[in-house]
Formats: sequence, structure tokens, C-alpha cells
Amino acid sequence: MVDSNNIAMVQGFKASAVAAGLKKNKGPDMTLIYSECDATAAGVFTTNKVKAAPVLLTREHISSGRARAIVANAGNANACTGAPGLDNARTTAGLVANGLGLRPEDVLVASTGVIGKPLDMELVSAAIPKLIGSLTSDGITSAAMAIMTTDSFLKFSQYNGFAGGNPFSIQAVAKGAGMIMPDMATMLCFIISDIAIEPDDLKKALYNSVEKSFNRISVDGDTSTNDMVLVMANGMARNGRLSERDFREFETGLGQVTEELSRMIVKDGEGASKLVDIRIKGADSAHDAINAARTVANSSLVKTAFYGQDPNWGRIMAAMGRSGIVMDEGSVDIWVNDIRIVEDGLGKGVDAEKRAAEMMTLEKFTVTVDLKQGQYEDQVVTCDLTHDYISINADYRT
Amino acid sequence: MVDSNNIAMVQGFKASAVAAGLKKNKGPDMTLIYSECDATAAGVFTTNKVKAAPVLLTREHISSGRARAIVANAGNANACTGAPGLDNARTTAGLVANGLGLRPEDVLVASTGVIGKPLDMELVSAAIPKLIGSLTSDGITSAAMAIMTTDSFLKFSQYNGFAGGNPFSIQAVAKGAGMIMPDMATMLCFIISDIAIEPDDLKKALYNSVEKSFNRISVDGDTSTNDMVLVMANGMARNGRLSERDFREFETGLGQVTEELSRMIVKDGEGASKLVDIRIKGADSAHDAINAARTVANSSLVKTAFYGQDPNWGRIMAAMGRSGIVMDEGSVDIWVNDIRIVEDGLGKGVDAEKRAAEMMTLEKFTVTVDLKQGQYEDQVVTCDLTHDYISINADYRT
Repeated sequence: MVDSNNIAMVQGFKASAVAAGLKKNKGPDMTLIYSECDATAAGVFTTNKVKAAPVLLTREHISSGRARAIVANAGNANACTGAPGLDNARTTAGLVANGLGLRPEDVLVASTGVIGKPLDMELVSAAIPKLIGSLTSDGITSAAMAIMTTDSFLKFSQYNGFAGGNPFSIQAVAKGAGMIMPDMATMLCFIISDIAIEPDDLKKALYNSVEKSFNRISVDGDTSTNDMVLVMANGMARNGRLSERDFREFETGLGQVTEELSRMIVKDGEGASKLVDIRIKGADSAHDAINAARTVANSSLVKTAFYGQDPNWGRIMAAMGRSGIVMDEGSVDIWVNDIRIVEDGLGKGVDAEKRAAEMMTLEKFTVTVDLKQGQYEDQVVTCDLTHDYISINADYRT
Repeated sequence: MVDSNNIAMVQGFKASAVAAGLKKNKGPDMTLIYSECDATAAGVFTTNKVKAAPVLLTREHISSGRARAIVANAGNANACTGAPGLDNARTTAGLVANGLGLRPEDVLVASTGVIGKPLDMELVSAAIPKLIGSLTSDGITSAAMAIMTTDSFLKFSQYNGFAGGNPFSIQAVAKGAGMIMPDMATMLCFIISDIAIEPDDLKKALYNSVEKSFNRISVDGDTSTNDMVLVMANGMARNGRLSERDFREFETGLGQVTEELSRMIVKDGEGASKLVDIRIKGADSAHDAINAARTVANSSLVKTAFYGQDPNWGRIMAAMGRSGIVMDEGSVDIWVNDIRIVEDGLGKGVDAEKRAAEMMTLEKFTVTVDLKQGQYEDQVVTCDLTHDYISINADYRT
């Protein structure tokens, strides 16, 4: 997390944010991130069959493996808006391209907010010249602010490394909060780097890091129509052709920033008060491991028990039992941090549960389940389900 | 719903309830339902791989297609209790059989409550003679009371019909509240009838009615280790051999009581304030129809929007989009009761939503989605997700 608004951006990038009037609170709600020179680009998009207009457009634009700018708005998802919605996304890209002297296909578009409402293009059109006019090399945290919706804190992460003997940086901003679950969610993440990297390598590195970060978190089991993670790399680090070792270094960095941001998103899950790692060990297959972790991580009953600081392991057993995995109830062990509360399917008693309940008063703890069926393991980060989740989501549009 | 405690039971059946001390509140927590003569019996059980001891035992006992008694307790699920747990269920059946002069395999056992705690057999053993001693022909509502856990009202339903020219009755009690979802949930339902029916016909009628009732409801997407629906029919209606027409009449009756009880269970969903029918029309397959209905019915975001009386149809679209069904966003229509809020994938505007929001102030309404992909339809009954759900489940064991 970052307090200052004056972080120098990765070289060759600028950003800006303005209040276009799309958010009810009249705060900053549009942002522009711009690369002064050609950049390779890659993206990962929602798997939801209902895809927002900006998802459709950006998938098209990024297929070349290159991009120069990302324009994003909060307050309106431009989803379920039909052909006029796609036109609006296209117009947005076109206006940005015109203003910056780019081709429309160099511009990536992202939106987040209410679904099903036409985007107010008068507001968007009026905001774009202001966005372009206020581009600055310390605008990255303003960009992070502008994409926040129900987020309660700004999400920014940075990594500094070396490639080909030259220093390079990665900076990333994200928004999350509700509707978060594996396979993406209403979350946006924009990543910039000055590394020189081929489009295919960038894509590979992005896919790998997203799989281990954003696809391993869960807030409420709902996925959105608008999720995307975009990365642009402009080569200004002049690291030459990327060696195998440089690639691994870049991947490490990308892994670190995406993991940090994904944890911030869960921590800031709507109403969440606790961050819980669900670790499954000893699964019969990789599929079983992730499946069990996700089912436990998404269970409303398990999540309310976390909120209640209650080591109610029966709910964890029941969730695994309906997940469809290979399991033998009589060989399951369950821990809260290092306190074993279940051994071979049976509770370890009141004392163990008392100590586990103390662990659960912490803001962060780990639940480990050993299925003793095989060698596979996986992990999902989740949060508790609280009164505030209900308040935030019952009143979201009112 | 029933106010009186003095309902005459189906002929040939008696029931009783006592406070064994298993519930924290010291209220009635054990019940016995007894058939004075031989009865055919059938059961449907949880699909959760983690099955409570009474589920394992009762599946074994009911395999003969006959039973004479059901003994049930609340306050302790006798689940995740290993071999001693199974012994305890067996001992419970044995004690009831002894007291009533039956074979142990004539006795069906059911439990509900906290998972993972050994059943206090001292309390159970002391209670059984009292249960037997207090059997009465108007004890059915006491039985319904004794199995309640977080239920806020008693769940009883009755059907009177004719078979072979003779009158017959069906009575049924249920408990539900939390952990309810298709494929069964922590719910118990005990059904008695005086119809004369062969075990195979009884099984068929039960499966069909459960499929359309208890397997079409959802409170929170969690399923339990203890669910069961049991039916006993003692033949005292002397209807002779069941004709095809009589069978249909019995099935209608069973369908009515199970549907009534299943709706009561959703209505009494933990913290629920609204009952919502999710109807999917025009699906490409039967599987798509039920899958879409369940995904919408289980979505926390959809359910909190119901609580907020907000026709936030974007959440419904997003839920369908991740359900894996065949769909074309541009041909979806959505109604709240008879108010169409989405036509061909686009919102019908503020006026339609205002009228829909008014409908949503009702305690009961229907959301209909027409996918226009095919001829299949299905329906799931769900409830809203409220502050009270969190309170009840965060504090359940404390």
C-alpha cells in the first residue's frame, strides 16, 4: 500500500485521472495510461459468457500484441449494452487515439461499474481532452484512485529488477472489492514495465502470473462481465534480447506484483475483516486440489464461521464433501495455522479448538487441509463474510 | 403452517418428543415416530461424500423397503464422528427397537446439529424410554418442534386423498433453515401415510417428489452431511393393490406436501425475508435450464440485491454468463413478476425498473429469464441474503 501521490512512473509512461461525472460521488472516474513509445501488450479477460463491450473491443485491439494506451472508466461497466455499447467503447478508443496521434487499435479500453446502463458519451467525450492534457509522469496512483469503486484503499505494487544487466521496473494498479472469484472477477489490473520483451513472452508471463494470483482468490463466488488484466512493456530498459534468465526474472517480478495486488483485493473484499489462506494438501489430482480449495473458499457457511472466529471444521468437511473430490473422511487432517483441530477425520477436542479460535482473532491466518490421497496441493486466498458485505451489496445502486 | 398441537395423526401412527438435553436451549430435541403395524419405507439421502453416521445406518436399514420407527435428534449431527459415531447410531436404533419390541433394522435414525462432536449417549439412552412412554396419536407437531434447529417456525403439511375408493392421508414434517441447496441440505423430512403401497412404488414416488421440491430450493449453496427424507406407509387405508390412477393420486399428494415443506424451508432460510422463484425458460437443454436457475439462485450478489429490493439485472446476467450454459446475451429477456426489465439483452429503462423495484418490496415474487435458445425450462426457489444470515451463522456455535 502506498501513501504518496508522487511516485515516479516507469520510464516512458505517463498517466492522468479526471472526474468525468460517471461516479455518483463525483470523484475521479476516468484514467489514461500512455506509453510514449511503441510497447508490446498482452491481456487476460473474463471467462464470463456475458462480456462487456470494452472486453470485446480490447481483445480485438490487443490481438496484435502491441498497444500504446489504456483508457478506463469507473461508474459504468458498459456491459449488457448491445451494439450501441460496443460503438461507445470504439468511440472512446477513437477519441483517445485522435488526441494522442495514435491508431484506434493502439488504445485499450476498460470499464467497471453498474451493468446495463448506456455509457454517457457526452461526459466521456468531454473528459478525454482533459485526460490527455493532464498526462504526467507521476500519475500512476491517480490512475489507481480513478478505477476504485467499492474499494476502500488504493492498490499499487512495484517491482525493480535487472535484465541484460540493465535495471527494469514493473508497476501495477488494480481495483477489486466485490464479485471476486477464480476465473477473474470485477477486477481491473493495469501493469506497465520498461522491459524489452516479445509479445509471446509477455503473454506467457502474464498468463502464468494471473493463474497463480488473480485466479487463486475468492471473495464471493461471483464473476463479472468486465474483468481484465492488461500489461504494456515499452522496452526503454534497453535490455536487448531477453535471455531465459531475464525472462524468469521478469516473471518473478510479475508474479510478485500480481500476488501482492490479488491479496490486497481479497483483504479489501467487500466488508471483509480477515484474510484466510485455504491450503489443500495430499489431493489425488491437481484438479481435486484446486476444486477443494475453491469450494471451501467460496462456502458462505465457512466464511461466516471465519467472521465469527469459530473453528467450525464440520463446515469445512461438508464443503469438501460436496466438492466432488476423491476423499476419505477418516483420513482428513485440518489445521488453523499450526494448531491441528482434526486428525484422521475426528475433532481433536475443545482445547485445540480454543487455541484455533485464538488464531482466528488474527487478521490473517491459514487453514490447511491434508486429504492424504495423493501428492497434489493448491491454495486459494479468501476472506470472511460479514455484515458489511450485505450492506454494501444490498445498497450498491441505491 | 399450523397453530395447533392437537392434530390427529395418520391412522396407525404415533409420535412423541422429549428434551434429552442435546440442544443448548434445553428445549425438545428428540422425537420418535412409530407405526403400530408393518410399513413400507423409502428414503433419499445427502449426496455429500461426508455422510453422518445416521445416514450410513439408515441407508442400511431402509434397504429392505420396510421400517417401523424413526428416531431423530437435534443438537448434534453425529457427523465426522468415526466408528464410535456409527456405534452410537446403532445403539440408538437398538434401544428403540428393544423398547418397542422391534428388530433394530426396523428403526431409522436421523440427526441434525453440530458436526464433529460425539453424541452424548447417556442423554440419548435416558431419553429413549421417555420417548416410548409418551407416544401419542396427536404427537406429530411435537415431532416437528423437536427437530427444529435454527428454524423459526414449525413445518408441517398434510394431504387427504382417495385410493381404491378409500380415503388416505399423508402427513409430513420437516426442518431446514441453513445449509439448504439442491442435492439436499441440512434438512430432515419425515413423511407418513396410511396408503397401501409396494416398496418400489413408494421409492419411485418419493424420488420424483424430492426431485421437484427439495432438489429445487436453495438458501446458501451449502449442502450438509445429514440430509434425509424418509417416508413410511402402513397400509391402514386398506386401498388394496394400487392402480395406476391411485399411484398418480398418491404422487400428487406427496408432491404437494414436499413442495409446501420445501417452500417453508426457503421462507425460513436463515435470515431470509423474501421468497423468490427463479424461472428459466427457453433453455437449450434440461441441464442448462436447471444449471442457470441454480447459479442465479445461489449468487450472493443476486440474493443481496433481492434483499435491497434492487432489480439489478446485470447481476443476473453475470451469474448466467458464468454458469456455462448456451446463451446469447442479445436475446435474453428478464421479468420481475409481469414487469419486463430486460428485452433482447438490453435494459427497458428506469420506469420498468421502478415498477420492478415495487414488486420486490413483496415477500414473494418471481424472476423469469427467457433465454430463447430452446424449449427447456426449470425453476428454483431461493431467498434473499440478509444481515440476519450472517448473525445466525457467525454465532452458531458460540
